[in-house]
Amino acid sequence: MSDLRIAVSALHSFCCDALQAANVPPEDARLVADSLAQADARGLNSHGVVRLLPIYTQRLRAGTTRARPRICIERQRGAVTVVDGDAGMGQVTGTFAMRTAIDLARGIGAGIVGVRNSSHFGFGAMYVEQAVAAGMIGVALTNAPSNMPPWGGRTPYFGTNPIAVGIPCGQERPIILDMSTSVVARGKIVMAQKKGESIPPDWAIDVDGQPTTDAAAALAGAVLPFGGYKGSGLALLVDVLSGVLTGAAFGLHIINLYDEGERTQNLGHFFVALDPSSFLPAGDFEARMDQFVREVRCQPRMPDVDRIYLPGEIEFEQAEESARSGVVLPDAGVTELDQLAIELGIRPLQARAGV
Amino acid sequence: MSDLRIAVSALHSFCCDALQAANVPPEDARLVADSLAQADARGLNSHGVVRLLPIYTQRLRAGTTRARPRICIERQRGAVTVVDGDAGMGQVTGTFAMRTAIDLARGIGAGIVGVRNSSHFGFGAMYVEQAVAAGMIGVALTNAPSNMPPWGGRTPYFGTNPIAVGIPCGQERPIILDMSTSVVARGKIVMAQKKGESIPPDWAIDVDGQPTTDAAAALAGAVLPFGGYKGSGLALLVDVLSGVLTGAAFGLHIINLYDEGERTQNLGHFFVALDPSSFLPAGDFEARMDQFVREVRCQPRMPDVDRIYLPGEIEFEQAEESARSGVVLPDAGVTELDQLAIELGIRPLQARAGV
Repeated sequence: MSDLRIAVSALHSFCCDALQAANVPPEDARLVADSLAQADARGLNSHGVVRLLPIYTQRLRAGTTRARPRICIERQRGAVTVVDGDAGMGQVTGTFAMRTAIDLARGIGAGIVGVRNSSHFGFGAMYVEQAVAAGMIGVALTNAPSNMPPWGGRTPYFGTNPIAVGIPCGQERPIILDMSTSVVARGKIVMAQKKGESIPPDWAIDVDGQPTTDAAAALAGAVLPFGGYKGSGLALLVDVLSGVLTGAAFGLHIINLYDEGERTQNLGHFFVALDPSSFLPAGDFEARMDQFVREVRCQPRMPDVDRIYLPGEIEFEQAEESARSGVVLPDAGVTELDQLAIELGIRPLQARAGV
Repeated sequence: MSDLRIAVSALHSFCCDALQAANVPPEDARLVADSLAQADARGLNSHGVVRLLPIYTQRLRAGTTRARPRICIERQRGAVTVVDGDAGMGQVTGTFAMRTAIDLARGIGAGIVGVRNSSHFGFGAMYVEQAVAAGMIGVALTNAPSNMPPWGGRTPYFGTNPIAVGIPCGQERPIILDMSTSVVARGKIVMAQKKGESIPPDWAIDVDGQPTTDAAAALAGAVLPFGGYKGSGLALLVDVLSGVLTGAAFGLHIINLYDEGERTQNLGHFFVALDPSSFLPAGDFEARMDQFVREVRCQPRMPDVDRIYLPGEIEFEQAEESARSGVVLPDAGVTELDQLAIELGIRPLQARAGV
């Protein structure tokens, strides 16, 4: 049996059904399905359905991620709000928090929202695109279970703590920078392990602190920060803003998505929305961004480079291709989803339209 | 003649005198002297007296940096302020802008201040320490004259656009992350050239896009971002926030500090101050930071590592050492400062107390 090509809409409806079977309200299920199916559509299978839906539903059924959380505003002062996610799904709490930040920014130019007591929030681009859709610059940070040493260290303390920033343009597509502070997202090593592939030697170290190309050894050891001590410093910063500042867990105290099914994760997130019209007359920022993007794109290229991509462009184009042709899922992943469908009593992926 | 050891206080008074001779008011001269002498004291000679004082005074005397600018608030809405620096010294405008951000944060939890029409602002740690001294988390960004290609490009578009973040702790020293988005600050390549030293091959490319170890060829070519496309994405982000958003110049449009003495630089900066007591009960954040710092410091180390440093620790300790023993300046640099003293009619460095 070869890898299957699945329509994005089929993936999406499968996620919705699975999450609703795990007691998630329809509207929330749709949000999480958007996150997982869009990640696959963009080629980010480290944040896609195969990797995340089984563990999400497992935690939901165990109650360690709450299907129907009581998300509440803990503190509100001026430009700052702190949200308690009540151990709900990160996508649900994150979307609520970014909406809160956007509302603040509409009123006073900027909104900063910290989130505690949350769970894995999927790919970060989703939240900054929410800001961009409202004409705002958006920032989304989250901490993550520890798998990266501090600089000079040998064992994990930080997560791969990602940084996402979205910037609206006028005629041009928005800039969407979404990156982990590790060399690669840990999910890519998980996917390599699932596919039985080896990994490059600069991605991770084993438990003895030695570089390794073995995905399993890397997952038992630690991933490395991108760009050496500078990437490590950024990972630290993300944990301070997402975890220490919000009242969430940080560093070693964050519960792993996979290994500790009995406890809630207590992840923290940090969201910013910034209204460009507080800085410049309405429309000026977007016009200046168009100029900026066009100038960057037209710079002289390295000999082996066909095109200069702005952050997010590759993923947007991949999503368009996926909308036309569907998403290719590894055979092993589809088998896992079939098993999940049986467990949850929902229609299997292959039985859906557009497969 | 060997390299000279100079007292930090002598360096500081020399800067004050030089800047006042160039018509800078005493209080502003002291701020800029703080920046230059502190940079040298911390071992950041890329932002120190030898590299910057001659060009600063040259521009001041030419009027392309204004000794007595009329700094003004262009826009103010809620949490956001935009400052026009009137082509004054970056340190003067930057300190004003961060003070404005701190005042905003005192009132409404967060303050965000964009600056246009500014000049080189020295090392970024200075501003975030200003926030930390007020009990705030501080962020300071600036764009810079182009010397780094966009990812995939061969010729400069972005500057080495640095990121500085300061985080207050309780008992522990604050965390001060201050880094360029290039592999190294361009100033380090300038210093290598002044000392006649070669540079590592991963720092820069020559005009043909080839890696080079020759400092002069690197300065004629382009420096490279740290961490590949991720560092490049951060450099882009810093230019958007500092330049595009504030109404300052960006990318290729920024005037170089050294090469174009007839025009003002029109640099942009971006400052954030964030009050931790908007997120957590007073004192909680600082106590949690102490725990975080102590945990990071005690993680198991790589075999060849004696100690895990938090961002800023090396520089703080170097500054303490310099306060005791003075700063070593290269002979060629001292000669340049002697020449400057003659031009400006001020007392030479070696004639000052503590040399």
